[in-house]
Amino acid sequence: MPSPPASSPTERLDRLFVALADGNRRAMVDQLSRGPASVTDLAKPLALRLPSAVKHLAVLEAGGLVQSDKAGRVRTYRIAPDAFGGLEAWVAERKATWHRQFDALEALLDEQDPQP
Amino acid sequence: MPSPPASSPTERLDRLFVALADGNRRAMVDQLSRGPASVTDLAKPLALRLPSAVKHLAVLEAGGLVQSDKAGRVRTYRIAPDAFGGLEAWVAERKATWHRQFDALEALLDEQDPQP
Repeated sequence: MPSPPASSPTERLDRLFVALADGNRRAMVDQLSRGPASVTDLAKPLALRLPSAVKHLAVLEAGGLVQSDKAGRVRTYRIAPDAFGGLEAWVAERKATWHRQFDALEALLDEQDPQP
Repeated sequence: MPSPPASSPTERLDRLFVALADGNRRAMVDQLSRGPASVTDLAKPLALRLPSAVKHLAVLEAGGLVQSDKAGRVRTYRIAPDAFGGLEAWVAERKATWHRQFDALEALLDEQDPQP
């Protein structure tokens, strides 16, 4: 099931975080991080009906977290190659900015109270 | 504004990801990572009305991303001390499981085709 194109970085992040904001979908990511699986494999441990599992998987694909391919009649889902890259980059950028704020504060305090 | 208690790790993750699944709320996190700010400071660059900004900030507080305190009539928002810890831990755990899957596959292939 191809994901609809995400036209902007903001839209891509919206879809990523929406995909992860649900316990069942995070459980699917957990299961897929242990290996590829079919919709049936993914639906069963969560006691989901297949149409509901298919909907959750479409949200995860749109969020760039999983991808799927079809061999014969069976569609197999797996973790997308760069599933966690967007998330890690987002956190790293915010943390870097946040830590620079403390460095700037420290420099300001040093300036006001110079060491001999 | 105190966050409602999050009773389970699943609920805490739901609130964290819901909080981040909105461009305006992520922009507020960006601004706060550069330093503390009031609701007015946060509403202005996003052209939000104050009640709307207050709602977004409550969602960010419930997600554990920001915290606030009130001095006189002014409430100041800042990044929560461990704002990004939950997110980083979640990503690290999934990546570790995912990478172990490749290690196991590699071991299996080595077993089937032993080197002399």
